Amino acid sequence: MESEPERESNNSSQGSHGGWLRAAALEFGLPETTFLDFSANVNPLGLPAPVKKALKRELATVVHYPDPQCQELIEKLAAYHRVDPETLLVGNGAAELIYLLAQGIASGKTLIPVPTFYEYERAVTNFGGQVSRFYMGEKWHLNLTQLTEQLTEVSAVFLCQPNNPTGHLIPRDSLLSFARQCEQLGIFLIVDEAFIDFLEAAELLSLINVINQFKNLVVLRSFTKIYAFPGLRLGYLVANPSIIKRLRSLQPPWSINSLAQKAGVVALDCTDYVQRTRNLIKQERTFLINKLEKINGITPFPSEVNFILCKLDSTLIDAIALRKFLGQRGILIRECSSFHGLDKHFFRIAVRTHKKNKILLNALERLNK
Amino acid sequence: MESEPERESNNSSQGSHGGWLRAAALEFGLPETTFLDFSANVNPLGLPAPVKKALKRELATVVHYPDPQCQELIEKLAAYHRVDPETLLVGNGAAELIYLLAQGIASGKTLIPVPTFYEYERAVTNFGGQVSRFYMGEKWHLNLTQLTEQLTEVSAVFLCQPNNPTGHLIPRDSLLSFARQCEQLGIFLIVDEAFIDFLEAAELLSLINVINQFKNLVVLRSFTKIYAFPGLRLGYLVANPSIIKRLRSLQPPWSINSLAQKAGVVALDCTDYVQRTRNLIKQERTFLINKLEKINGITPFPSEVNFILCKLDSTLIDAIALRKFLGQRGILIRECSSFHGLDKHFFRIAVRTHKKNKILLNALERLNK
Repeated sequence: MESEPERESNNSSQGSHGGWLRAAALEFGLPETTFLDFSANVNPLGLPAPVKKALKRELATVVHYPDPQCQELIEKLAAYHRVDPETLLVGNGAAELIYLLAQGIASGKTLIPVPTFYEYERAVTNFGGQVSRFYMGEKWHLNLTQLTEQLTEVSAVFLCQPNNPTGHLIPRDSLLSFARQCEQLGIFLIVDEAFIDFLEAAELLSLINVINQFKNLVVLRSFTKIYAFPGLRLGYLVANPSIIKRLRSLQPPWSINSLAQKAGVVALDCTDYVQRTRNLIKQERTFLINKLEKINGITPFPSEVNFILCKLDSTLIDAIALRKFLGQRGILIRECSSFHGLDKHFFRIAVRTHKKNKILLNALERLNK
Repeated sequence: MESEPERESNNSSQGSHGGWLRAAALEFGLPETTFLDFSANVNPLGLPAPVKKALKRELATVVHYPDPQCQELIEKLAAYHRVDPETLLVGNGAAELIYLLAQGIASGKTLIPVPTFYEYERAVTNFGGQVSRFYMGEKWHLNLTQLTEQLTEVSAVFLCQPNNPTGHLIPRDSLLSFARQCEQLGIFLIVDEAFIDFLEAAELLSLINVINQFKNLVVLRSFTKIYAFPGLRLGYLVANPSIIKRLRSLQPPWSINSLAQKAGVVALDCTDYVQRTRNLIKQERTFLINKLEKINGITPFPSEVNFILCKLDSTLIDAIALRKFLGQRGILIRECSSFHGLDKHFFRIAVRTHKKNKILLNALERLNK
């Protein structure tokens, strides 16, 4: 899940609305189109050409209601993941699905390792659930043994894999044992794989291919990061049919607009695009981390995905000031003070194309001049 | 609110999925594009040209997150209705707002006069509320004095104005007294004005212009019927800021996609289009009702809006059979047996353009041959 733009905060000094370009334009007095957006973790290659084409062609169909059952997309997803259509639920963005999960199954005491995507906690508390936070510690390697000790009296756990904003990936074996433990204890485990598509081994790493072995496991996925259409909203989850049934009963009808449905159907065939994305992200992430390590006062953390968490040395500048400094130069980053477990010394950047990454690096290098 | 296509029933013999063309195509073995759709109550003039243009132009922006606060649209709506922006909440279709209402304020015993749009009841019961139905009787004139007597132990009331599927409009004065009574009793009154834009005097008839006098009144509106973009999803509600705040806390972030937001902003300037729509609907509704009255075995009911409820004489054919008869000829209607208070002798048709209305009438006239 993308952690920006945050919805509630209209306070520009919070610096937390990320991809929300209109607010940035107002805040920094620059036209929306001039911004280089490193704050939203979206595929830097932009819309796949077949999706763009399909959207143009399908515009005329918005005079009809969307298919309330998303049948074509469900069939396509079922074939893509080799799962039963009954194990799939499509949502108006993964955000809607997180809210349905908070209503339908994570309504008791819910364990959330932090720092992570804020909407899990917001959703759970909004619907009366209690959140128990587990702090990861600064290397962001989630200690699953310690986490297991926290499972008493818990009815659900949210995990983000790889984690936003730290970029850390839990080894699949460890995650699988943890999932089995949750299953034995009758605890719902929700694994948010919103960014897993950016990894070379996504299909092997994902827990979707073991979904049939679990009654209480939910895997969340997003279309909008990897295929670059967050404006359309599209996510899905995979789980036991009984969970799907329960969540579907809570979902408003026609929740998924017809253009998002069509975009999803066409996107699943864009395998070349995904491969090019993975190559680009891997190469540019390495490039960015190497360069960032050489800038005095900035420590980038290792990442497996399309974003990098960085820490600022307190002698340099804090991330709130850095966000302003860059924003005035037309560059948006995500300062991370609003994440539980982080503070004003942390910021996150998306991995973008080489030319844009160099512009960001040039601006950051000027901090020491 | 549009009452089709229904989501849960995939059973084609129910005949209840209305505008859901893909299912109709499968059921009747005809291509989707050949259908004349009288089942969905959408503006027969199609997308306003400025909206179509804006959508084409804005397609490229789907690579960014939508504005989570819908600021531009909220400002535009506030100016349009001359209300405070704080009294407005935008939704992913009115359907999402109905679900938020069921969670946020209609969670106790809720009074619903029937026949009416089915989603009120579905939403309330889904979230654990109890529904108390009030049967209108066959002339569909809602007796508000009798309804008032039902207000004991009720915490909320849903009213559809004009009512779907009956087409009946409650006189504004009576509705206003009823609203005052609810206000005094501390009962939430939700007035769904999804179809009111089709009336010449919409602005005068709407309760939006008295919203400041009420703490417990909610007015629901839809963009998608009058501006013909149900595929994009867009609705809003007007209420006291405390209600807005409560509902917003339950709404997932980024719920309204960026194309719907842009379409809404542009649509509100399409005043000529709305006027042309009202003229067309008035003229064609009169034409249809006059012709329908002359067909043996069909009784159309008076309507103030863009759809007409009809009753079939039991000696002729029932509505389930009629739907099949017409569907095989590429014409879709809404048979109404799934509405509480109606049965298999009722069907509803949308008012469309003259040429299409004549095709429907020709097919219906053949019933007696």
